[in-house]
Amino acid sequence: MSRVYNFSAGPAVLPEEVLKEAADEMLDYRGTGMSVMEMSHRSKAYDTIIKEAEADLRELMNIPDNYKVLFLQGGASQQFAMIPMNLMKNRKAAYILTGQWAKKAYQEGKIYGEAIEVASSADKMFSYIPDCSDLDIPEDADYVYICENNTIYGTKFKTLPNTKGHTLVSDVSSCFLSEPVDVTKYGVIYGGVQKNVGPAGVVIVIIREDLITEDCLPGTPTMLKYKIHADEGSLYNTPPAYGIYICGKVFKWLKKQGGLDAMKEYNEKKAKVLYDFLDESKLFKGTVRKEDRSLMNVPFVTGNEELDTKFVKEAKEAGFENLKGHRSVGGMRASIYNAMPIEGVEKLVEFMKAFEEKNA
Amino acid sequence: MSRVYNFSAGPAVLPEEVLKEAADEMLDYRGTGMSVMEMSHRSKAYDTIIKEAEADLRELMNIPDNYKVLFLQGGASQQFAMIPMNLMKNRKAAYILTGQWAKKAYQEGKIYGEAIEVASSADKMFSYIPDCSDLDIPEDADYVYICENNTIYGTKFKTLPNTKGHTLVSDVSSCFLSEPVDVTKYGVIYGGVQKNVGPAGVVIVIIREDLITEDCLPGTPTMLKYKIHADEGSLYNTPPAYGIYICGKVFKWLKKQGGLDAMKEYNEKKAKVLYDFLDESKLFKGTVRKEDRSLMNVPFVTGNEELDTKFVKEAKEAGFENLKGHRSVGGMRASIYNAMPIEGVEKLVEFMKAFEEKNA
Ligand SMILES: Cc1ncc(COP(=O)(O)O)c(C=O)c1O
Ligand SMILES: Cc1ncc(COP(=O)(O)O)c(C=O)c1O
Ligand SMILES: [Mg+2]
Ligand SMILES: [Mg+2]
Ligand SMILES: [Mg+2]
Ligand SMILES: [Mg+2]
Repeated sequence: MSRVYNFSAGPAVLPEEVLKEAADEMLDYRGTGMSVMEMSHRSKAYDTIIKEAEADLRELMNIPDNYKVLFLQGGASQQFAMIPMNLMKNRKAAYILTGQWAKKAYQEGKIYGEAIEVASSADKMFSYIPDCSDLDIPEDADYVYICENNTIYGTKFKTLPNTKGHTLVSDVSSCFLSEPVDVTKYGVIYGGVQKNVGPAGVVIVIIREDLITEDCLPGTPTMLKYKIHADEGSLYNTPPAYGIYICGKVFKWLKKQGGLDAMKEYNEKKAKVLYDFLDESKLFKGTVRKEDRSLMNVPFVTGNEELDTKFVKEAKEAGFENLKGHRSVGGMRASIYNAMPIEGVEKLVEFMKAFEEKNA
Repeated sequence: MSRVYNFSAGPAVLPEEVLKEAADEMLDYRGTGMSVMEMSHRSKAYDTIIKEAEADLRELMNIPDNYKVLFLQGGASQQFAMIPMNLMKNRKAAYILTGQWAKKAYQEGKIYGEAIEVASSADKMFSYIPDCSDLDIPEDADYVYICENNTIYGTKFKTLPNTKGHTLVSDVSSCFLSEPVDVTKYGVIYGGVQKNVGPAGVVIVIIREDLITEDCLPGTPTMLKYKIHADEGSLYNTPPAYGIYICGKVFKWLKKQGGLDAMKEYNEKKAKVLYDFLDESKLFKGTVRKEDRSLMNVPFVTGNEELDTKFVKEAKEAGFENLKGHRSVGGMRASIYNAMPIEGVEKLVEFMKAFEEKNA
């Protein structure tokens, strides 16, 4: 067995420790005589797994009691519809467009009401976060929507927008648990887990209780109502049980690393290795405005497409996987989520240095 | 490590061989240097996994070319809404009520149009399948809906209803791949995989191409349109990748067992062991009309609630897990899916015999 350095934007690298434990428990989970995959979701053993996962997540993120934690299916993309179907009481919402995922959410929002673009960074290929300190938000907007970390473009909101008292809804798929957050500033925080937390197929929604209501838009499928899942503790129907179990292990791993303060410190140190090199390199350069740089997704280019292709190919041969930029952007992107060890980034930078020398 | 006999109705027992392979591949899938959980769904390695899974399923079920195979999220429960949202062009559909799952689908159908109960076995606690040879189906009904195997009550359609030319939609969650089916008789066959095929979090939809259209009901979320997933080969967004990988292994295991003809033979032999005993036992008896008995879910009772409870408790102590009947029905239920070895059923019957002697 030999492991590569996996810079995939998602699904993405998971802690080796977590995978080892999962492998060990595959045929017999702690004396139950069965795999977690085979376990009734109504069993005592599974009840403990899902409750512990929730408790650990609450502890990690310091989630107040008036927020529910839901483990759902359908990925982040399904939330693009669930959010308006559940929250658009006035059929109006403000969207901040900082990339393709924000745009997809915005377009989905339009199916259900007036989705209003209140800010955008489309003018410069989403390479920055627009100033959101004084936006023109309609009085009766039901929420303000952001994609907090833009996986494709490598930008991150360092300050939350001034919502002028409106509910903030945030897609944190690609920065989930990468640093502490003040949950009280949000109405809804949600993310697909397949970047920083677990295997694809689970989306976690953290939602303030007063936003969970019966009166969804007409025609909302039962499965797309937050209330149904909140009332049933995410067990309205069979949950993505194995994925939740792996998420639970990652939560425990994060606690062992020292929690989100420690992760932030580690992630900053790790990202600095790469950003510092990009800033000093004559060949490689980052594509994002400095103050908006993500700690998780680092896009960069050489300025020469052929050289980009050569770099990605040679990097792969050297054991650095998935460095190709998103198909819509080109260039390179290194996703350096929680589970990417700093050695991976250091070795990547060494490799980039050598490549630069050879190709100067 | 010691494995129990797991009679859970779902999530349920999986082939030990499949679990062993999954454990072995957990940290390094066939030299890729990563777990399937960590793999980009756009990677070559994953492309092979999902394409092979589909090809093997097509071979097993002999699925014609004019049917699409979709690997989706949301469980069977989400299909209760997707079916009307995609198929109810005339806002009218006929439902045959053979249990709680059929009823839930029917109730969800009512959100979107006229869902008409055309037959039911509610009069006798769903212990039989109603005669469906000459139903009163409205001319303009968009489809006829059945739950082909009723997990809770242990009944199974042995003959498909006469739909009088209407599209047949069937929930096969609890009989998926348990025996051959003639796919051409259906418009849609679907099932959550967590009973006979894989871990919870994947639902497989086999749908005739002419039923996949743009014109879903107004307000249908993008993620709930069959067309979106069909056009993108189940990769419109991040799929439940690890679950699909396990399903793929189960498909290969089924092929090795000799395919669905062999499974049918094995399942009949296996169920016969239990049904024959129930028929001869003075203490235990099956609750379902003989000709409608499921090969997968076998409910039975002693006729005495206290004795039922005692039986479930003692069985558990002896390594027979999850024999308690569904909370809405009581009694016992042995789910004996594909992956339950015949030894498990033989040993259960031995245990039942001994229990009967002691408690006569
Ligand atoms: C920020 C963000 N939001 C949403 C999505 C879509 O997630 P899913 O594939 O789970 O629907 C992604 C996927 O990469 C993402 O990066
Ligand atoms: C026949 C049948 N249909 C539907 C369901 C619901 O499935 P899910 O929990 O995946 O929504 C079940 C679950 O037990 C079932 O047995
Ligand atoms: Mg983006
Ligand atoms: Mg530079
Ligand atoms: Mg049923
Ligand atoms: Mg009897």
